[in-house]
Amino acid sequence: MIYFNCDYNEGAHPAILHKLLETNMEQTIGYGEDAYCAQAAEIIQKLCKKEDAAVHFVVGGTQANLTVIDAALRPYQGALCAVSGHINVHETGAVEATGHKVLALPHRDGKITAAQVAEAMEKHLTDASAEHTVQPKLVYISSPTEFGTLYTKVELEALHETCRRYGLYLFLDGARMSYGLAASGNDVTLPVLADCCDVFYLGGTKCGALFGEAIVITNPELKQDFRYMIKQKGGMLAKGRLLGIQFLELLKDDMKLYLDLAEHADRLADRIRAAIRKKGFELVCENTTNQIFTVLPVDGVRALSEQFALSPDQMMDENHQMVRICTSWATKEEDVDCLIREMEQI
Amino acid sequence: MIYFNCDYNEGAHPAILHKLLETNMEQTIGYGEDAYCAQAAEIIQKLCKKEDAAVHFVVGGTQANLTVIDAALRPYQGALCAVSGHINVHETGAVEATGHKVLALPHRDGKITAAQVAEAMEKHLTDASAEHTVQPKLVYISSPTEFGTLYTKVELEALHETCRRYGLYLFLDGARMSYGLAASGNDVTLPVLADCCDVFYLGGTKCGALFGEAIVITNPELKQDFRYMIKQKGGMLAKGRLLGIQFLELLKDDMKLYLDLAEHADRLADRIRAAIRKKGFELVCENTTNQIFTVLPVDGVRALSEQFALSPDQMMDENHQMVRICTSWATKEEDVDCLIREMEQI
Amino acid sequence: MIYFNCDYNEGAHPAILHKLLETNMEQTIGYGEDAYCAQAAEIIQKLCKKEDAAVHFVVGGTQANLTVIDAALRPYQGALCAVSGHINVHETGAVEATGHKVLALPHRDGKITAAQVAEAMEKHLTDASAEHTVQPKLVYISSPTEFGTLYTKVELEALHETCRRYGLYLFLDGARMSYGLAASGNDVTLPVLADCCDVFYLGGTKCGALFGEAIVITNPELKQDFRYMIKQKGGMLAKGRLLGIQFLELLKDDMKLYLDLAEHADRLADRIRAAIRKKGFELVCENTTNQIFTVLPVDGVRALSEQFALSPDQMMDENHQMVRICTSWATKEEDVDCLIREMEQI
Amino acid sequence: MIYFNCDYNEGAHPAILHKLLETNMEQTIGYGEDAYCAQAAEIIQKLCKKEDAAVHFVVGGTQANLTVIDAALRPYQGALCAVSGHINVHETGAVEATGHKVLALPHRDGKITAAQVAEAMEKHLTDASAEHTVQPKLVYISSPTEFGTLYTKVELEALHETCRRYGLYLFLDGARMSYGLAASGNDVTLPVLADCCDVFYLGGTKCGALFGEAIVITNPELKQDFRYMIKQKGGMLAKGRLLGIQFLELLKDDMKLYLDLAEHADRLADRIRAAIRKKGFELVCENTTNQIFTVLPVDGVRALSEQFALSPDQMMDENHQMVRICTSWATKEEDVDCLIREMEQI
Repeated sequence: MIYFNCDYNEGAHPAILHKLLETNMEQTIGYGEDAYCAQAAEIIQKLCKKEDAAVHFVVGGTQANLTVIDAALRPYQGALCAVSGHINVHETGAVEATGHKVLALPHRDGKITAAQVAEAMEKHLTDASAEHTVQPKLVYISSPTEFGTLYTKVELEALHETCRRYGLYLFLDGARMSYGLAASGNDVTLPVLADCCDVFYLGGTKCGALFGEAIVITNPELKQDFRYMIKQKGGMLAKGRLLGIQFLELLKDDMKLYLDLAEHADRLADRIRAAIRKKGFELVCENTTNQIFTVLPVDGVRALSEQFALSPDQMMDENHQMVRICTSWATKEEDVDCLIREMEQI
Repeated sequence: MIYFNCDYNEGAHPAILHKLLETNMEQTIGYGEDAYCAQAAEIIQKLCKKEDAAVHFVVGGTQANLTVIDAALRPYQGALCAVSGHINVHETGAVEATGHKVLALPHRDGKITAAQVAEAMEKHLTDASAEHTVQPKLVYISSPTEFGTLYTKVELEALHETCRRYGLYLFLDGARMSYGLAASGNDVTLPVLADCCDVFYLGGTKCGALFGEAIVITNPELKQDFRYMIKQKGGMLAKGRLLGIQFLELLKDDMKLYLDLAEHADRLADRIRAAIRKKGFELVCENTTNQIFTVLPVDGVRALSEQFALSPDQMMDENHQMVRICTSWATKEEDVDCLIREMEQI
Repeated sequence: MIYFNCDYNEGAHPAILHKLLETNMEQTIGYGEDAYCAQAAEIIQKLCKKEDAAVHFVVGGTQANLTVIDAALRPYQGALCAVSGHINVHETGAVEATGHKVLALPHRDGKITAAQVAEAMEKHLTDASAEHTVQPKLVYISSPTEFGTLYTKVELEALHETCRRYGLYLFLDGARMSYGLAASGNDVTLPVLADCCDVFYLGGTKCGALFGEAIVITNPELKQDFRYMIKQKGGMLAKGRLLGIQFLELLKDDMKLYLDLAEHADRLADRIRAAIRKKGFELVCENTTNQIFTVLPVDGVRALSEQFALSPDQMMDENHQMVRICTSWATKEEDVDCLIREMEQI
Repeated sequence: MIYFNCDYNEGAHPAILHKLLETNMEQTIGYGEDAYCAQAAEIIQKLCKKEDAAVHFVVGGTQANLTVIDAALRPYQGALCAVSGHINVHETGAVEATGHKVLALPHRDGKITAAQVAEAMEKHLTDASAEHTVQPKLVYISSPTEFGTLYTKVELEALHETCRRYGLYLFLDGARMSYGLAASGNDVTLPVLADCCDVFYLGGTKCGALFGEAIVITNPELKQDFRYMIKQKGGMLAKGRLLGIQFLELLKDDMKLYLDLAEHADRLADRIRAAIRKKGFELVCENTTNQIFTVLPVDGVRALSEQFALSPDQMMDENHQMVRICTSWATKEEDVDCLIREMEQI
């Protein structure tokens, strides 16, 4: 079985494991206060051109999302989010479990717009019974989105401007950050993100590390006591250096490893997309990152599933099913050759 | 100004206040363990033909909703609910503040169907990543709904049957219960509710009392330790007898006062609906309880608003606005005459 | 049976009920935005000599406590409190249910000192693993305390000063406020409270009203969006005017009714205390409000319990038991005569 | 600087890292549903002689504690725990953040007794206002405790029996499990734990792994839907196999590596304890695991701190301070030689 179902089927890029081995017997203090975490944080600050950004490392994305959101909101406030957003559909109510409502907005290819945010705020501000409703205070987006699409610089700047106008925080979930940074057509860089977002994170888990997400806080209001929040929510790793070392390895030399791994995945995904187009199958949305959403005949899905683990999604009609195909930093060229060959047989 | 904006503009029916005065200097034990609460509970058990139902009194609807739902659910479970449901839109995230997601379903005239519930459950049960989503465990409905419509006996039985099949609790918010019981065409009685619902409540606040809701729990799983829940959530009234006395007065003699007050309101609402139809204005939905949703020309809304407090809702187009008009147990016949006269002038 | 077990055995002072009757059929807008609430708030601002204080009315003490504390704290912060404090022992974990730890300190006669608060803060601030502990951010006290004792002006000023030094909020639970204001030896007035506390409340439930507590917020940081908090926690009464009317009646004419009722109760309690001293029984603590904690022989407790409902507490040894005796605004002189006579027989 | 301040200064035992490298490029499904986790779970079931135990892996101890406790309790229930217990003092209120009160009991050398639990339950069951207090439902203990002491088989059986009698869950935090299993005088085995506890966990983080705790649930009531809980609380590792592989390596061949590493640490701690006794310094409590609590002259602490990182604790008097000294699986024999030499110089 060849896995194209997600981008976390393997361990970590070997360079990371070797670094963990190399540093294994060093003694460091715990909980992310070691020199490796400090170095990794400094690199991230420089990459973002925000030397006063606060950088924190946590093990996974759900922790990052729930900790940031609970830290940012007062009890009666909620998070605006695409109805397809990860926190709305795939975290078992982790945000609600901290007491906050996710305020879902319709999405287009996984994205929401500044205009939608403005509309939601105008509705709230002009509602005579606003006090009886949840007050929107944070906008949660992800880029790449759940559909593998990307926000453009213009879209992010518009969201930033709208958030600033209405006193909202903009929070970007970058669990698949590297696949976005390396994607063809992408015009969003880390400094752009750092300028537009109050807080965002760079994913490690899906981008070549064993695990780990690097949270970057640029808004001073959100920096205070953030480590208390991490500890309370169970996100503070005793051997915090494991996170520092991994991000150091990924991000050193101008994010070389981070970008190389993502470029590999994106290029392979481009090849699969080309094959889908050539074959005449539908792409659910146009995108350039490592996730592909396509609609295939059910017997094609069945045939492919004998050799490949795909990620089946909803039935479009009786005879067609949406499937997600993922490449990753670890995907092999020959496995893509093989997938394309089999798709051509459908 | 004459208020038609809601059904809680006045105090209580005078008979209730007189009963409070009459019993005022009696000494009773606190927290709802007095003889008045016991009598009121017994009357409710008999009215429901469920002598083993647990009956609890709380001050208001938000308390009733959040306490019942938090008592019923484990941390990862959520409540299915019409997107227009009170807990989804008008309680400032009270349910989410207890840690639970409200799982919103599309509604029709404020109602959801057994088929929608079944579909949501099938989706969850066949979802390969169900563990990454909130598990539906309770269905929240209200009758009368937010739109003043009623569930029929057939609809409730279908919901009951579906809930039983999928192991869901059915919870009915009866904040406006009396207006439903007294409505023309209604075929749902308290015994029907007690048979169909695991838990429901009879509203007092909007139905003639100063305040208060009577929660009826028929499912033994939900009975245990419910008073701990009420106390923790701030819903346990020190002078609990105030609730018992009020419900006694409303419900004694086969709910005479409760039904009389509601019949009065429903009949006056019928008069207003007839006038709206005659005039040719749109009724947003057909219903027979004390709330009326209609679409009026904006200049008509403006004209009416000089004498009457209505409850303006969304703009339908540039020139038309939805408004809610409410009657209540306290609405005066002559005020309705006056409203109808003015509507005819539009 | 004559009840001396608590101070909420009766309804409300008749003047309040009559006022409710008198205003009963007036139409007002809901949720505490009516003119009665506005007037009551204004009176309280004047009594406190803080015209910019925010005043909010809620139904009960648990609601007041949990709403204030959850509004004041970020998720990782907790409330310092006497181990005997109401929120620590008698609210079924209502504060913890909002996510916050109650940080219990040893008490003396129900009170904690500025020195204890300073010590707790120094410990936190010098703790190398402070981030692994709950950060104290609010000091909760009650006056009268659970033991009926009072904070003096000097003690309150010291707490205020210490809280200010460490960036803590001082929150005073005044559920039995009037009994303190009227007590012999009391030197704390409403302006003193308003100067010393960031937030406090004047009790109604135990002081002559049917129910209700008036929350006074003097610290601007705590004022923002407080009505959202009240709504979310289930404390917003639909017919909010019931709270305004009751407090108006109690507090008009320089708190005449509020103080008269309390003086009555305190004086009767003084008579009982004198009888206890004369008889040679132990008073658990010296105090001048309406609660009396004494230690009686068990056969005396048994004998008294035939005629009087007392509030039995812990066994001190095999033959002696602590009991609480409460007077209230509604206690009758002749019932006290009778109790004293029976105590003399022990 | 040589670190004796805690037992998580290094990475993992090299055998674990090599296993991670060896398996690194295998493709497995995520979230702990892979074959490595299944094998590790099976080994644990066999070691516990409980083939139907549910085994789950999470990244850290705080996650294990908060997830188990929130899964086990209804909203108004709390956890009995030594006042020194980790959840009470060192998790930034993580348990309270899930809504539950920690009910602290006095401890002796970090332990609580069955008699204390019974006393707390009798107090609750005979309390006339029990509904106004948090209902104890779970007993949390750790072994080794925060003081490095161990529960004996007799003590655990008594706790088990008492918990069963009162309907309480017994939950044992085994973050330092291996150091206990390998300690001289220990008479508690995994089957004993599995018989006595409703749920417990075997620590990895402090016992030779990079990170990870293995939760073992023996009580069927606690098994249901536990993976939903893990996901919601942020404890579900995408690359779950990292946990399975580590525990496999530690626990295979009858826990050979797990026990060998702990025996090494315990023996070195015994050497340090012998040196302390010989020198005449006080041991805060008698124990045989890898933590040592001793009281040293402050100038001695100062002198040692030039070469060694110790864990300073409270001042006992002006001239004496408590310090914690920790050995671990990674501590070097020669570093202990050096520490002992320096201690002799004090």
